[in-house]
Amino acid sequence: MPLPAEMARVFTEEKIDFVKRSGLKAEELLPGFVRLRMPLAGNQNHIGTLYAGALFTLAEIPGGALFLTSFDVQRFYPLIKEMNLRFRRPATSDISVEARLDTEEIERIQNEAEREGKAEYRLELQLKDADGQVVAETSALYQLRKH
Amino acid sequence: MPLPAEMARVFTEEKIDFVKRSGLKAEELLPGFVRLRMPLAGNQNHIGTLYAGALFTLAEIPGGALFLTSFDVQRFYPLIKEMNLRFRRPATSDISVEARLDTEEIERIQNEAEREGKAEYRLELQLKDADGQVVAETSALYQLRKH
Repeated sequence: MPLPAEMARVFTEEKIDFVKRSGLKAEELLPGFVRLRMPLAGNQNHIGTLYAGALFTLAEIPGGALFLTSFDVQRFYPLIKEMNLRFRRPATSDISVEARLDTEEIERIQNEAEREGKAEYRLELQLKDADGQVVAETSALYQLRKH
Repeated sequence: MPLPAEMARVFTEEKIDFVKRSGLKAEELLPGFVRLRMPLAGNQNHIGTLYAGALFTLAEIPGGALFLTSFDVQRFYPLIKEMNLRFRRPATSDISVEARLDTEEIERIQNEAEREGKAEYRLELQLKDADGQVVAETSALYQLRKH
């Protein structure tokens, strides 16, 4: 069973200390859809914009958040295999990301992991500032593994 | 002028709060060569290995650390443009990285940034565990910009 929303929120924001310290917020956690936000405050780099490591974290966590809301968390766990990021413009505000997996893709991944022991899934995301401008584009490859 | 080693260490470890909170250590900071270490303690993920965001940070900071030891820090500043990471195996210990820029490359970058206002440089790195095993391979594109 996927996790209930409140439990998924606590896991997303607090399970990994590195993430908790960044202040990442899970604003919406639904089966097949998540929206997360990384605060600028506390995460500025040497020129006062959002540090690239905070952008990476914002782009990476959706793979785990979608796992929590959409997959059987007792039988599977996720790993990241690859991440590519293109930094497009300075991130001068809190930055948000939305990520989706449709029902057919969730079933495909889970059935394949059940059968093969593992299955890959990819998320292509846009990280956006408060004005809706894209500050970074990312492509991440994850693997769902059977316990 | 590049920064003296002790000042470069303080800037590398403490200038960016996000990095400081990770406990990143600058073990060696020389013109054209840096070695950094990311502690496992405090940075574990959901399966007890080093969180991918900490690996990203370890792979990203060498671009800035080499800037501090090798370039004229009063006339230029660095930006990251792209980062690609391949996660090869679970990171079950502190993880280290070494990064180099040779003298000719440092001169090429700085002369080009002086002339054009900006110049790109790329670092291809291997992140290694305590046994010397490669846990991740990364390729990052930076830009040196003139103030």
